[in-house]
Amino acid sequence: MSELDLEEMYAVAISVAREAGQIIRDAFDKEKEVDTKQSAADLVTESDQAVEKMVNSRILGKFPNHRFIGEETTAVSGEKHQLTDEPTWIIDPIDGTTNFVNSIQEVSFSLGIMVNKKAVIGVVYAPIKDEMFTARLGKGAYLNGKKLKASKITDLKQAVIITEGGSSRDIKVVEDKVKNIHTLITHTRGIRSYGSAAINLCHVAAGRGQGYIEYGIHIWDFIAGALIASEAGAVVLDPTGCDLDPLRRRILCACSAEVAKGLSQILTHLDMGSD
Amino acid sequence: MSELDLEEMYAVAISVAREAGQIIRDAFDKEKEVDTKQSAADLVTESDQAVEKMVNSRILGKFPNHRFIGEETTAVSGEKHQLTDEPTWIIDPIDGTTNFVNSIQEVSFSLGIMVNKKAVIGVVYAPIKDEMFTARLGKGAYLNGKKLKASKITDLKQAVIITEGGSSRDIKVVEDKVKNIHTLITHTRGIRSYGSAAINLCHVAAGRGQGYIEYGIHIWDFIAGALIASEAGAVVLDPTGCDLDPLRRRILCACSAEVAKGLSQILTHLDMGSD
Repeated sequence: MSELDLEEMYAVAISVAREAGQIIRDAFDKEKEVDTKQSAADLVTESDQAVEKMVNSRILGKFPNHRFIGEETTAVSGEKHQLTDEPTWIIDPIDGTTNFVNSIQEVSFSLGIMVNKKAVIGVVYAPIKDEMFTARLGKGAYLNGKKLKASKITDLKQAVIITEGGSSRDIKVVEDKVKNIHTLITHTRGIRSYGSAAINLCHVAAGRGQGYIEYGIHIWDFIAGALIASEAGAVVLDPTGCDLDPLRRRILCACSAEVAKGLSQILTHLDMGSD
Repeated sequence: MSELDLEEMYAVAISVAREAGQIIRDAFDKEKEVDTKQSAADLVTESDQAVEKMVNSRILGKFPNHRFIGEETTAVSGEKHQLTDEPTWIIDPIDGTTNFVNSIQEVSFSLGIMVNKKAVIGVVYAPIKDEMFTARLGKGAYLNGKKLKASKITDLKQAVIITEGGSSRDIKVVEDKVKNIHTLITHTRGIRSYGSAAINLCHVAAGRGQGYIEYGIHIWDFIAGALIASEAGAVVLDPTGCDLDPLRRRILCACSAEVAKGLSQILTHLDMGSD
């Protein structure tokens, strides 16, 4: 893949993110038709589907040989994903659908591009706040064009960690997540929850908090944000401390290797299957 | 207290909020000198103290007979408060000090004025986002001049509830809070945590989520936000469902009576003493 091809893909990524943002913004204050997926807390709206359809057609119109993984397409087909070496556009049309439905501002469009199974471009656009987070592999991370730098904190006791209750209502999963919340409150300066994995990763990239841990999310929730965070100097791993497996449905992100190690050691690691 | 007096107090409140916001904004991206109070997660900075000193002098210069309750003055004196019928300005110079220290944007200046033991004016200014939330008793609540309206949701299962781990590291307190987090995840669409009581109440006022519950906070954290929320149509109560006692260190706020009742019934009510 040439530098020129990547430039073109990056430009298209930004352009569809802006277009997606406009759709989200237009629908944000209106009444929404809501449907549920895996649980009563796992929601989908017409806007999720409209954004995904638009992005899919824009990308395949421009790059007919590229692959596409979208949250809502997957929810309908239920298929497992096989990452290939082909350029693959991975999108979450609205990350933070519960926020979107409940008029909470942390909603985002997330788009990651993988080539040879490696993330090379990440774009997360939070349209209500007009925050465009972008990263290209090896070229740093930016918020509305301004370079991002993760926090320098190394002491877990001084860290604020983002985590989520999540949408699963499986009794054991909720129990384990609550146990981790308890552990985090005890060992850190506190926890925060914003309801969007993509935005959570961008927060760590922007130095707004020192870490983020979540089990049960999907590749489309985190692949763009993970590149943005790591390009801002954060550490992105599997929660056990191994390399991140993008299909493994869990992520640990921390501003420093020390905070990452501390988190990995104190948490109960949930196995949520793979995408 | 005449309408004219209240008008003048309201104008002064807005003016000191803007001045406080400027101090907070100027210090936000700089290195901070941090001290701890009750626990390693209970922080105070020079900026908290600088804002409180400025506001104290502005108010007493203008209204020498008014009373003043400030978070940091109280932290130093350790005295218990006796609410009187006199006009009393109650301020939290930086609500969300942990956020401030950790460069998380949800920080606010909170100012409530009580007359005859009743909140009559509430101002919460979030300077990083330039959001000025205001309310006067009986006159509605506003964000940057735009009228606020709480969410219309009545079904707890559809509600997103804001709550916090808080700064206490007392083992029993943390256990009970985590138990409540578990209960909330199970019975609602999800939880959110932003780390500022004043902003949490303003979020409910603005329809960004359906409720907020916290134990262990103080009158200066919530008195302004509580008026803003109730003037936006939200219900503000003691978590047990009784009338709010402003010195009782706990609050339940919900967009509707139904959500409030549902929350009150499922939660474990912590007794955190009184201010």
